Formats: sequence, C-alpha cells, structure tokens
Amino acid sequence: MFNEILVGKKSQMNYVLACLTAFHEGAKEVTIKARGRSISKAVDVVEIVRKKFMTDITIKDINIGTDEIKLNDNVRRISSISIVLAKMK
Amino acid sequence: MFNEILVGKKSQMNYVLACLTAFHEGAKEVTIKARGRSISKAVDVVEIVRKKFMTDITIKDINIGTDEIKLNDNVRRISSISIVLAKMK
Repeated sequence: MFNEILVGKKSQMNYVLACLTAFHEGAKEVTIKARGRSISKAVDVVEIVRKKFMTDITIKDINIGTDEIKLNDNVRRISSISIVLAKMK
Repeated sequence: MFNEILVGKKSQMNYVLACLTAFHEGAKEVTIKARGRSISKAVDVVEIVRKKFMTDITIKDINIGTDEIKLNDNVRRISSISIVLAKMK
C-alpha cells in the first residue's frame, strides 16, 4: 500500500488524523510531504503522531530538496521535505 | 572543530553566510538547527548553501524531535530539526 500525505494549509490535526487513519487501515509506511512554510507544520504533525498517538511509529527516512514550480514563464524554487514513517514490527 | 548554527528570526542570508564562513574557515561539518516556525527557514538555508554556493556539501544527517521549554510553571513542547552538513572529500 502506498500512502502519501501532503501537508498544506489545513489545520495540523487534519494531517495527524489522515496519518493515523492510514496506519489503522493497515499501511506499513506513510510519507509526509510539505513545501515552503508548511515544512514546520509537517514536522509538528510527525511529532504529534509519534509522541501522542502511536509510539510504535519510527522515522525511517527524512529528505529535503528543492522543487521547481513553473508559473507562466517564471521558474520558482521552493524547499521541500519528505518524512517516511514506518510501523515497528 | 564543532560548528552549530541556530536559525531564528534573522533573514535567511545571515545564516547562509554563517554557514559558508564556517566551511571556509575549515569546518568539516556544520549543524543547522531550528525550532518551530524557523524549521522551514532552516531547510531553505541548507538548500541555498548546497545548490547555489557550495555544491560539494552533502547532507549527512537529518533529525527531528521535540524540545521541552519551561516557561514559569508551564512546559511547552516545540518541534525541532537538526541538519548536519558535511564537506565531501
């Protein structure tokens, strides 16, 4: 099963809930992604899931990078993060 | 040599410059840290250093966590990130 949650403008708890739901539905891994200012929120979401709700979740991988977004003729560069969470066996 | 840069309220380029300076002074590794909303800025700083200024820098490690801050009798939890940059040989 492939699960990816893109953290954006909604409130933190929306994404926490989406993540918990994915794991409860049997996902072995969930990837949390965010761009720009939402990166801080993505880290908060991961910390809330791990510390408050599911202590059997580990951080398997964290990557940061730059996404290029084309707006008309301009190319904007925006930082991104991708955090892979996995259920311990 | 031990180098740590805490990203806070100053502008991005202050931290980019601090990081470049540390490497030019001979540091083999520089750790970029941030808390809360500054986490996004820390990721931007790392991406600017890597992509624009020093392409021989790699991300050696990324960790996220929760810091507990005591304010009077209250304990506030705040997310944190720590990104270790290293110079390739």
